[in-house]
Amino acid sequence: MNKGPLDGFRVLDLSRVLSGPAATMLLADQGADVIKVEPPEGDITRGMGTAEGNVTAFFLNINRGKRDVCVNLKTEEGRDIVRRIATTADVLVQNFRPGVMEKLGLGYEDIRETNGKIIYVSISGFGKHGPYAQKRVYDPVIQALSGMTDIQADHEERIPRMMRTVIPDKTTALTTAQAITAALLGRERTGEGQHIELNMLDATVAFMWPEGMMRLTVVGDEPDGTIGQIAQDLVFKTTDGFITVASMSNDQWAGACRALNKTEWINDPRFATTAARFENIRVRLEGTAEIIATESSVYWLEKFESEGVPCAPVLSRLEMLDHEQILVNDTIQTYEHPVFGKVRQPRPAARMRGMPEQPQPLAPSLGEHNGEVLREIGFSVEEIARLQENGDIAEG
Amino acid sequence: MNKGPLDGFRVLDLSRVLSGPAATMLLADQGADVIKVEPPEGDITRGMGTAEGNVTAFFLNINRGKRDVCVNLKTEEGRDIVRRIATTADVLVQNFRPGVMEKLGLGYEDIRETNGKIIYVSISGFGKHGPYAQKRVYDPVIQALSGMTDIQADHEERIPRMMRTVIPDKTTALTTAQAITAALLGRERTGEGQHIELNMLDATVAFMWPEGMMRLTVVGDEPDGTIGQIAQDLVFKTTDGFITVASMSNDQWAGACRALNKTEWINDPRFATTAARFENIRVRLEGTAEIIATESSVYWLEKFESEGVPCAPVLSRLEMLDHEQILVNDTIQTYEHPVFGKVRQPRPAARMRGMPEQPQPLAPSLGEHNGEVLREIGFSVEEIARLQENGDIAEG
Repeated sequence: MNKGPLDGFRVLDLSRVLSGPAATMLLADQGADVIKVEPPEGDITRGMGTAEGNVTAFFLNINRGKRDVCVNLKTEEGRDIVRRIATTADVLVQNFRPGVMEKLGLGYEDIRETNGKIIYVSISGFGKHGPYAQKRVYDPVIQALSGMTDIQADHEERIPRMMRTVIPDKTTALTTAQAITAALLGRERTGEGQHIELNMLDATVAFMWPEGMMRLTVVGDEPDGTIGQIAQDLVFKTTDGFITVASMSNDQWAGACRALNKTEWINDPRFATTAARFENIRVRLEGTAEIIATESSVYWLEKFESEGVPCAPVLSRLEMLDHEQILVNDTIQTYEHPVFGKVRQPRPAARMRGMPEQPQPLAPSLGEHNGEVLREIGFSVEEIARLQENGDIAEG
Repeated sequence: MNKGPLDGFRVLDLSRVLSGPAATMLLADQGADVIKVEPPEGDITRGMGTAEGNVTAFFLNINRGKRDVCVNLKTEEGRDIVRRIATTADVLVQNFRPGVMEKLGLGYEDIRETNGKIIYVSISGFGKHGPYAQKRVYDPVIQALSGMTDIQADHEERIPRMMRTVIPDKTTALTTAQAITAALLGRERTGEGQHIELNMLDATVAFMWPEGMMRLTVVGDEPDGTIGQIAQDLVFKTTDGFITVASMSNDQWAGACRALNKTEWINDPRFATTAARFENIRVRLEGTAEIIATESSVYWLEKFESEGVPCAPVLSRLEMLDHEQILVNDTIQTYEHPVFGKVRQPRPAARMRGMPEQPQPLAPSLGEHNGEVLREIGFSVEEIARLQENGDIAEG
């Protein structure tokens, strides 16, 4: 049975924490056989948040649908297991610091000796060379270096702010998953494997660039650095909550003015054109906020809606779960999990032929597939028992 | 000459604004022949920001390396041109509101009649059905509905905030590019095309999910909605700027305490374990901020660095351009552009075999490749002249 477009491809995943595991989960959702390699102490995300056994919601959210082998990379026998799985894999993903895999004898040059067709992917924090190459990476460090905190800076006091979700890690994951499928596709034509290197800093800068770095595009036309992206701040307080409302075209602006009962603003020279509205954005948003504060969310959403102005309620995460559009889309699916009981998972955003209606929601336990995977690559039951005894493999 | 892993694949791109164009630019960077179809008035992004001729920095940043045909979809002849290009394409991407392409006679069922192998991609704002299906979509609307503004909410007053870069649009672009390459890869094995439907709301929820929605994963264990993701707020003011510093492990925490000259904190029960440090995060961050405020950025970065604590300067976007790690990585490349002069572009984050050292930086002018593309698909010079005369195609 076809399980999706990546059915038949094997991914050997030595990556840890988030950037690699979230990439390979997307591939697992699309049908790939992802074999996750964990150290005997388990991935650090098995302990981040409320743990039940050795699973957390965080771990579950980025490891569903994978098989798991728990291998000690500190022993030659452990490393040999990885090399043997690699001979059967289409892809190897790793996000150790630059040089670590080479020291383990698991670098690209080592692996290609027995598998010249492999797509070997190295994710680093900052790149292979340069002052940060050997530093530990955390998402806030990338946000700080990439200029992301500058985009989010408070526009009154210009204090830089973080975005409160790990955008660099997750952007890197999507960039990685796309690069892997592109490289596999290229390999279908050329028959050749390759080593793809990417890093979180570059992936984040590229992600921010289209409009976030728009003012840096033309050399010599850079702003003074004090201009925030205020146009995004479209959250308005009502008497009972918050809404967003955005008018882009002249028609929408006229509709917004009618809804606000401020028809005199339609031809007001401060607001009559897109350029003028942008120029006078502060006074426009402040004036709008003042009026919206006087009525309820439902009142305004109906008003704006009837005038054809794009608007929506500002939902909390809990409210999002029950919003009618989310329900119609079947965005969030519910599963029975043997440890947690009922759990929610978002379905893959792009549905493709062969993908099951509900993907496999179970993140594996530590070393759950040791025996299965090792037998597949030719280890005997006796050898597996010996590896277990010697601590080359483990189960949690 | 191989231009990258997608060399030999043709993408017909009818999408507008950002979510589709940013996806297909990534494919163009990887060697695909992307034919962008624009309406006679041009894509709206040709007018967003400072325009030179009919190009803006924004347009340049999401359309490099494409060919451009300017076609009037309101005429039967115009639509016929699109159908004829589609017979030669591997992929068609469109982001009109649900139903529009079908009304134009360019829906999946129409296109597959003459090209059964096509990967046809429909990007919508909210999905095909449901209360928002026919609404206009802007990035703030998706941020509001997806719970993203809740994640970013101010943690004192719980006022929702936008993230000041269009994360839903750009996340959708990466999700789309990955889905396209995965579907093309699947097609190599099965020979079958398909219709991929995805929407910005679902793509955004899936992107937020791993840690941003961690507390919603286990049903019955949801928070009360007032808990912000304060752990991300690691921006500290120094006497001359801002830095970020993050200690995850016990070792790093001890190092941070030594750097801060607060060794009494190392074994303080409020901070001695990861769990305790998380529990007492406010007092910990406030205490840390007070001390960091007394010395310069360089002073603290050296101190934390020497103690092995992850840290970095908080850079403005302008400072980012000249940071040594960015320079070593060659993250930003500079080109001569005939209209703008010198322009900057981030290089593709994942470099792959065959991709040129510097990808083609030129976004096409409106209808620049009308003649070239139409001749390729069999139109004669006379027919092209007639189409031009009748307004079925245009040049800007």
